[in-house]
Amino acid sequence: MSYLNSRQKFSFDLIAQDGNARAGLIHTTHGDIPTPVFAPVGTQATVKSLTPAQLSELGAGLILANTYHLYLRPGDDLVAELGGLHQFMNWDGPILTDSGGFQVFSLADSRVIDDEGVIFKSHIDGSTHRLTPQKAIQIQENLGADIIMALDECAPPYDREYNQQAMQRTHAWASACLDAWSRHDQALFGIVQGGIFPDLRQQSAEFIASLDFPGNAIGGLSVGEKKSEMHAILDVVNPILPNDKPRYLMGVGTLEDLINGVMRGVDIFDCVLPTRLARHNSAMVTTGRLNLVNAGFARDPDPIDRDCTCYTCQNFSRAYLRHLIRAKEMLSATLLSIHNLHYLIKLTQQMRQAIIENRFERFAMDNLE
Amino acid sequence: MSYLNSRQKFSFDLIAQDGNARAGLIHTTHGDIPTPVFAPVGTQATVKSLTPAQLSELGAGLILANTYHLYLRPGDDLVAELGGLHQFMNWDGPILTDSGGFQVFSLADSRVIDDEGVIFKSHIDGSTHRLTPQKAIQIQENLGADIIMALDECAPPYDREYNQQAMQRTHAWASACLDAWSRHDQALFGIVQGGIFPDLRQQSAEFIASLDFPGNAIGGLSVGEKKSEMHAILDVVNPILPNDKPRYLMGVGTLEDLINGVMRGVDIFDCVLPTRLARHNSAMVTTGRLNLVNAGFARDPDPIDRDCTCYTCQNFSRAYLRHLIRAKEMLSATLLSIHNLHYLIKLTQQMRQAIIENRFERFAMDNLE
Repeated sequence: MSYLNSRQKFSFDLIAQDGNARAGLIHTTHGDIPTPVFAPVGTQATVKSLTPAQLSELGAGLILANTYHLYLRPGDDLVAELGGLHQFMNWDGPILTDSGGFQVFSLADSRVIDDEGVIFKSHIDGSTHRLTPQKAIQIQENLGADIIMALDECAPPYDREYNQQAMQRTHAWASACLDAWSRHDQALFGIVQGGIFPDLRQQSAEFIASLDFPGNAIGGLSVGEKKSEMHAILDVVNPILPNDKPRYLMGVGTLEDLINGVMRGVDIFDCVLPTRLARHNSAMVTTGRLNLVNAGFARDPDPIDRDCTCYTCQNFSRAYLRHLIRAKEMLSATLLSIHNLHYLIKLTQQMRQAIIENRFERFAMDNLE
Repeated sequence: MSYLNSRQKFSFDLIAQDGNARAGLIHTTHGDIPTPVFAPVGTQATVKSLTPAQLSELGAGLILANTYHLYLRPGDDLVAELGGLHQFMNWDGPILTDSGGFQVFSLADSRVIDDEGVIFKSHIDGSTHRLTPQKAIQIQENLGADIIMALDECAPPYDREYNQQAMQRTHAWASACLDAWSRHDQALFGIVQGGIFPDLRQQSAEFIASLDFPGNAIGGLSVGEKKSEMHAILDVVNPILPNDKPRYLMGVGTLEDLINGVMRGVDIFDCVLPTRLARHNSAMVTTGRLNLVNAGFARDPDPIDRDCTCYTCQNFSRAYLRHLIRAKEMLSATLLSIHNLHYLIKLTQQMRQAIIENRFERFAMDNLE
């Protein structure tokens, strides 16, 4: 099989370090990813309301697609038959797929979990499916993303007993995923769990690190815990995860969380927030969020942000965006998605530059207020 | 006022004629429009689901916006305050606005018409408004399009008595609009009415031609009459309308209608069809229409049309488009709009070339089958 020949394609170069913050370069078969990187989410093999050409113009270095959704519709076998996810959605750059676990736990109509995996009912048609570590890998190998994720169980953050059990399962599944992994042109990442409990997180980080994945992720954060708890967990986990491999904080996508994550050694982020906010008429700005439906914007000739260089801010007024929203025009989602994604992508580029120039602490202080 | 200095900006050059088919060039203050031209419709100051950058890439030479909608929301005064329609929607190229009449007759909740104009209730909030020839011009001067339309009354095509009365009103309103017209950087077009009745159409074309508008339109077609009736009316009207001014067939947008219109001397077309079909999952192709929801396309790796050079056909399979539609992803409307608009815009470009090369009849025969 041709992919066996490209076994070593995935690698990570640490370009610069400033405190714990890192500037890096991830090499994949579909190109390099400068880190820190924010990955827009294309749940159903499309970043909602944007063409790949628009995403490319935004400088997206990595995008994420969801295994749960694509397994159910159109089916990973169909995607494979059509040449894999890159060709299917016309995205030549790096793609990451999650394992499907998080969605099974949060979206499926009902589910029964045991040590082997989880049986769930589709939220689309109620049909019954079984997700196991082996199946999660098989689906992701069919989809063909550059970075794939081990199956994990994400527990409610404050339930210690549940977290202990979920962590053990996550560890067993991580090993099982490694065993099932056959396409080494794809990089398999392990996931650290353990809720808000530092001792569990330490144990989990040590175990996952010991498995020597090409990269490591931190799951189960940004799910209802306090910011201070998230930071404390990152401070426990990141020093244990190997320095020469990328670290991925899953499901995180605010300015504050990205800066705090990078400050603590995270390289990769993803979140539906910027595109979801866009579809709810909200623009991300340094002072917080602008809800563009507000009557105060009715005759406002200014762009969302005078200093922003995105296509939306260079060309459209708040008054026009408000008009589109009130007229229920699809273009509002497109233009606000462009702005919000640009906002986070530009932030990661600025952080990278600050790290390389050894002034990240100052950058963080300036931007966190 | 600065626009008085640019009084002569609008003009029409006849580049070539082949039978009755014409290749021309319309000059406006916002650039030249090669004709025949198909104008995508941006009802609410946006061609649904497309950015102006995408429209520009499609080579759209002219776009249309609707006076009725923009008058009600966001209001023509607001558009004027924000610099006019070009700046508001970020479209630097030529724009045409209709008079609002057609929408008042077809969309408003209720309406009372007399010789002075029409009183109607908004379909948005039920508020009462009055549209007169003077008001139609005032609104369109506020919007600031390059081509504006006289207020007309479009009657059901087969009702002779109604058409006679509506034609008389249309003529009186045409004169009133000419009197009210003050911004001569905008070109005011008159509209011929008269239903399917050749004698009324002849009378209307003679009257409208006598008013010496910068351009002339044919209204009240493609509203339920037979194709043969539409063609017969065009054969009556176009020879009467001056040869040195552009002719605009309103609301027409199929391959067959465009070819038949050009064959009879029409220069400008507009229609919601390509973008509306796109939102209803339909792709325009030479053999008719493809409904991309069809199960037969589930695993189809081909583009909509192998020979099509549009962004959609160059990059996406029918299987992916079907997936987007079934997953209710907005991108399907965008990609199908790009294809359908490209289809009609390319057709007008091909017709223009065929006219210039004196082979339009052959082109028409090949494409009408």
